[in-house]
This record gives sequence, structure tokens and C-alpha cells, in this order.
Amino acid sequence: MRRVDFWYEFASTYSHPAAARIEELADIHGVTISWQPFLLGPILKQLGWSTSPFNLQHAKGRYMWHDVARTCQLMGLPPLKRPVPFPQNSLLAARVALAIPDDSRRAQFSRSVFCAEFAEASNIDDPNVIAGILDRLGIPSADLLERAGGSETKDLLRAQVARAEKLGIFGAPTFVTSDEELFWGNDRLEGAVRWETNNCK
Amino acid sequence: MRRVDFWYEFASTYSHPAAARIEELADIHGVTISWQPFLLGPILKQLGWSTSPFNLQHAKGRYMWHDVARTCQLMGLPPLKRPVPFPQNSLLAARVALAIPDDSRRAQFSRSVFCAEFAEASNIDDPNVIAGILDRLGIPSADLLERAGGSETKDLLRAQVARAEKLGIFGAPTFVTSDEELFWGNDRLEGAVRWETNNCK
Repeated sequence: MRRVDFWYEFASTYSHPAAARIEELADIHGVTISWQPFLLGPILKQLGWSTSPFNLQHAKGRYMWHDVARTCQLMGLPPLKRPVPFPQNSLLAARVALAIPDDSRRAQFSRSVFCAEFAEASNIDDPNVIAGILDRLGIPSADLLERAGGSETKDLLRAQVARAEKLGIFGAPTFVTSDEELFWGNDRLEGAVRWETNNCK
Repeated sequence: MRRVDFWYEFASTYSHPAAARIEELADIHGVTISWQPFLLGPILKQLGWSTSPFNLQHAKGRYMWHDVARTCQLMGLPPLKRPVPFPQNSLLAARVALAIPDDSRRAQFSRSVFCAEFAEASNIDDPNVIAGILDRLGIPSADLLERAGGSETKDLLRAQVARAEKLGIFGAPTFVTSDEELFWGNDRLEGAVRWETNNCK
């Protein structure tokens, strides 16, 4: 089976357009997407970085905000709104996403979180925002939020971060093919799908 | 006239495949490329970085070398060889490139430098290597090396770096359209050309 693992971080701006377009592209090529939320913070912290590199490098940050806005516009997504603070605390959203076992429901939830964050500038650390998204998707929010806060989900997320590190992931989004080729960045989604497709599985 | 400025740094790995493919893509779309060598070092130094971010971040560096090798292979370029040291000192090559006023000759020289560096692992700081490239291109090397070391060329290069900074450039390659839209990275070359073309000039 053709499969690409989609590693995304809810605080990551470029994960937003990637989440919005990945299923359509995968469908065309008969590739199944496995949605893999993780936290980039613990990985960046090891580099001595206390915040996003986009905050630390001003020219790069200026470019990124302009480029993501331009990307959303060219894709027909709602106009980009910058969440405050940036980066958002993505712990709650990542735990909730992991607590949704079904890939297609997890994908729906994840896209909705990105839209709340980057099209409405909502605070995705707010349990009410997350509950509102779950309710609109018809997922029982009280149950899920409780499960997301349980030790099982916390362990799952820690294991995700460890797995990301072991794969050599250092940024988001990253696409990993079934033979563990890494493709980093929204721009490389086509490359990852092509690589997986050319495996002729 | 449709024009894209191609800002490249001779020490930059991703500038190599960009240099190899930019003219072909530009030709298809009727876009003229202006070759703009510059130095990234002085810009990165302001961030407190003493060397390439690919050396400072191990996972990112590992990914980059694998990705550039894969990119060269998919493009049909010679197999990537890692120059030692990395990054190479690119001052001499940048000065010589600037001392060649003709865009098409400058492009030929620049592509040859990238090939010497990343396909043959030659030291591009070595005047003999640079002279050899010039001789093979039929450019009088003694004259040009003298001009490259003169104060006029040194001033030109300092002005290039200042202009890059003013444009908001923080990495290489960067493509700048005639209305000063920036596109960073080899992956964004198509985006830059499409942007310039859609201007319908």
C-alpha cells in the first residue's frame, strides 16, 4: 500500500496549507495519508532555541508571514490572520488529535484547528475553542478532552516526539514515505507523493 | 520585460541545482534571469552564527546532504560530492563572478564553480581552480583575477550584500521578481517564475 506519514505541528504556519491540500493530492495518486501530530518544541529546545526560529530571525520571520499569506491566497484559503501569541501553545490540540484514533476524523479535526488558529486567530490552547471544534464535527467533546488529558494520551504524545526525533525530523511539516525518505516543508509534498508513487507498490 | 533576479551564494548547496536549472525554466516562460552573486556570511553573522546552520543543527544538516544528493540525482546532475571544509570560503568566486559583467558569461562561470565545488569537491577558494574554470570558458583568467581583487570589485560585492539585506534576503538561493516579491529556496523557483509571468508584462 502506498502510504505517506504526514508529521505536523499545530503551532506551525506551513503545516496549515499542507493539511489543507494533502488529501486531495494523495487521492489523485492513490496514496494513503497517515496523520502524525507531534510537538516540535522539545526538538528545537535542544538547539538552545526558546521560541520559533521565525521570531529569532527577523528577516526570515518577515518573509514567512508574507509567504504564508501569499500561499493561502493562491490556494483559495481564507486570508491569513496571525495568532497572538505566536507560536501558539499546541500541547492541548496535539493531545486531542492523538486521542482521535480514526485518521479521517483526526484529519478533519486538525484542519479545523489550523483554520481556527490561522484564519480566525483563535487561541488553540483554550479548551473552549477545542471543544467548539469537536462539537461542530459531531465528536463528543467532554469525553475526548478527558481522554486527551489522561496518562495514556500523554504517553502517546511523548512517544510521537521520540519517534519524530529518531526519524531525523527537525521541522514541520515533514512527509515520510513508506521507505522512510524524509521531505521537509509544504513545498516538498509533491516530491514525497511522487517518491512514494514511483516505488510502484 | 519579465525579469527575475537570481540571488545566489557560492557556498550554498541548494544554489547549485538552482543555477543548473534556472535558465531552462526561464526560457520556457520568456523570463530573463539576472545573476546576482552575494555573500550570505555577513548576514548570518548578525544572527550570531559562526558557520552554516546546516553545521549547527545536526538533523537539518543530515537531511540537507541527503536531500541535495537526491535532488542532483533526480535532475541528472553528477553525483554530489561534499566539499571540505563546508561551507567553502566563497569570497574569491563571488568577486570573480561580479567582475564578469555579461550575464550569460557570469552564468556559465557560476555553474562551473558550483560543479567544481559540489561534483568534484574542489576548493573554490583556490585561485588555480578559479583560473582553470575561466580558462576553460575562454575568459582571460589573469586579467579577471586582477580585476576581481581590485577595490572596484570589492566595493561592488559590499554593495551586493547591502542590497540583499535591504531586500530582506536571509538565505540562498532567493529569487526576486521585478515587483520585488521574494521566493526563498530552490523549491520556489517555479513559484517566482509563475509570479513574474502572471504579472502579464
